[in-house]
Amino acid sequence: MTKLDYKQAGVDYAKIDPLKILAQRAAASTAGNLARHGLAEIPSSRGESAYVVDCGEFLIASITECLGTKALVADAMRAITGRSYYDLLAQDTLAMAVNDIITVGATPISVHAYWAAGGSEWFHDEQRAADLVNGWKRACDACGVSWGGGETPALAGVVAEGRIDLAASCVGLVRPRTRLTLGERLAPGDAIVLLASSGIHANGVSLARKLAERLPQGYATKLPSGALYGEALLAPTVLYSPVTEALAAAGIVPRYSANITGHGWRKLMRHPSAFTYRIHTLPEVPEVLRFLQEQTGSEAREAYGNLNMGAGFALFVAPEEAERTAAIAAAHGVRAYVAGRVEAGPKQVLLEALGLAFGGEELHLRG
Amino acid sequence: MTKLDYKQAGVDYAKIDPLKILAQRAAASTAGNLARHGLAEIPSSRGESAYVVDCGEFLIASITECLGTKALVADAMRAITGRSYYDLLAQDTLAMAVNDIITVGATPISVHAYWAAGGSEWFHDEQRAADLVNGWKRACDACGVSWGGGETPALAGVVAEGRIDLAASCVGLVRPRTRLTLGERLAPGDAIVLLASSGIHANGVSLARKLAERLPQGYATKLPSGALYGEALLAPTVLYSPVTEALAAAGIVPRYSANITGHGWRKLMRHPSAFTYRIHTLPEVPEVLRFLQEQTGSEAREAYGNLNMGAGFALFVAPEEAERTAAIAAAHGVRAYVAGRVEAGPKQVLLEALGLAFGGEELHLRG
Repeated sequence: MTKLDYKQAGVDYAKIDPLKILAQRAAASTAGNLARHGLAEIPSSRGESAYVVDCGEFLIASITECLGTKALVADAMRAITGRSYYDLLAQDTLAMAVNDIITVGATPISVHAYWAAGGSEWFHDEQRAADLVNGWKRACDACGVSWGGGETPALAGVVAEGRIDLAASCVGLVRPRTRLTLGERLAPGDAIVLLASSGIHANGVSLARKLAERLPQGYATKLPSGALYGEALLAPTVLYSPVTEALAAAGIVPRYSANITGHGWRKLMRHPSAFTYRIHTLPEVPEVLRFLQEQTGSEAREAYGNLNMGAGFALFVAPEEAERTAAIAAAHGVRAYVAGRVEAGPKQVLLEALGLAFGGEELHLRG
Repeated sequence: MTKLDYKQAGVDYAKIDPLKILAQRAAASTAGNLARHGLAEIPSSRGESAYVVDCGEFLIASITECLGTKALVADAMRAITGRSYYDLLAQDTLAMAVNDIITVGATPISVHAYWAAGGSEWFHDEQRAADLVNGWKRACDACGVSWGGGETPALAGVVAEGRIDLAASCVGLVRPRTRLTLGERLAPGDAIVLLASSGIHANGVSLARKLAERLPQGYATKLPSGALYGEALLAPTVLYSPVTEALAAAGIVPRYSANITGHGWRKLMRHPSAFTYRIHTLPEVPEVLRFLQEQTGSEAREAYGNLNMGAGFALFVAPEEAERTAAIAAAHGVRAYVAGRVEAGPKQVLLEALGLAFGGEELHLRG
């Protein structure tokens, strides 16, 4: 069996990064425009998962995120089971935005849907349309956000025929402003609490799709539990905002937060400063991720460096608040692990049980 | 010459509208979620061009909008002239969001870019990438907004190969809250001030592309002025927020505003109440729109009912403020026409000079 790796699987970041860096610099240069309105940005929010504007009494966070290519898995699975799965994709898409905006300490308040189809025909499938709408509404209700509106363009020639480009934008409020979580208080000794993922979420999907192509049964391959591979991939991303809101209500303000998406566990060292993140407890790995790792012939380094491997979100909290943080998450239906601690030392993530270390040079997020 | 019309040209709204209505209803049902945060929506903002949340001291407006298929024109023109035109498309995309958010009286403060390409390769074209970034920055500076971040996903299989799906989300503040413009004060006697467009903007592009297919010289067809048809189509959408901000600074709060996009001049009766909108003065029609109307064999009814025909934005103001409104727009480089007035009467738009009437049943925006 030949190995499958990320570079074979899809996105070539070397081709995107120069534009990203240009865009980040140009974007940073527009911050001064806020002064015309008597406002200012929170400079340290640049490069973080959501952008924050300081309006004096209050802070406004905002974000736009896309689902990626997970809809291609749903489209393929529909041919096998007849289900559309767009209710689940709706939750995934909303989660991409909501799980990012909460990292800065914001309460998500409103979202817009962006559903750009390859033609008018896409929207004409009643079951799929109803699934998408109902799933989106349920996810909004779960997060306590108001669905403010959206776009449903038919973009023949831009979006591929028969496909849809799903994205969400979200606005949040940081209030009181002491809830702002941009990492200024992160310090050695802080505990790392990992919140369980439900499966692949929406990162690593290109690799998972590539694997399906070479499995004899494709997405219909049975996992040891009997679940179909494709259906297991479609387990929707966990919405973590009920947990972060409950923490706030309990008076717990994380010192930092990281949404574990692309770059997998390397995201644990997202904070701009140099710290060592020592992990002593690994969360249970969802069956579909274990399967993906085995079938692609990936080493633990590759798996943990790219996939969430059971940890969908990381909270960095004061050590005395770690157990209570985990208990509050559990009370909201999200399994949590007091999994490690922040230490003084070079920027790295250490996974003790696996004898693995990711060095700071292995994560580049800021231009 | 056979006639070209909208139904031939692309989007089949009959296939999209049922989903839109489902989505609007589901979205409206999530408004109560805001109460969990001690907030409430401005109910009358539903169905308007931007969504508004009431946060007590201040109001937050938000919107997500896409460019549509105009990038296909730029891609075709590049083969003719070698220019990328993505600097212009950047302005168009930002304008879609900004010109919508200002209709509710908001000052746009921050934007996120959404650039979803058909593959990593798209971003690797240095000239085009630089044009897109620089055009976006310039448009942000022109509107006084901070570019907070964005997404640059490579979505092979979802977005068509070699193409890009461009969208923007925008957050705005309505402050003081008396600037909120949802039409409560609109009344017979109010003046209609039309702000000039620069050309097709980004609505009617499917029709324009269809026409290019049957012109012997395609986009390279010369207009009477000597300009190429394709290049004239790419004149970027006017950014109207400098005008609305200047009006606010001058103490003029419009009674209502409408961004003239899809449905052309039918958008003049966007306000939910029944009024007659009598237009006595028509703005100059940009050459490219005149050409489009002639070459597609469209009647004035079809042209004005679908294209902006020279009017990109409508301000409804107190009659005594009409001339000053037009003068302030002109001082900001936007030609303006005191073009008509609001009257008691059935919902309709009357274009006196053309002997045309659009009835209220010809515009359906709310589910």
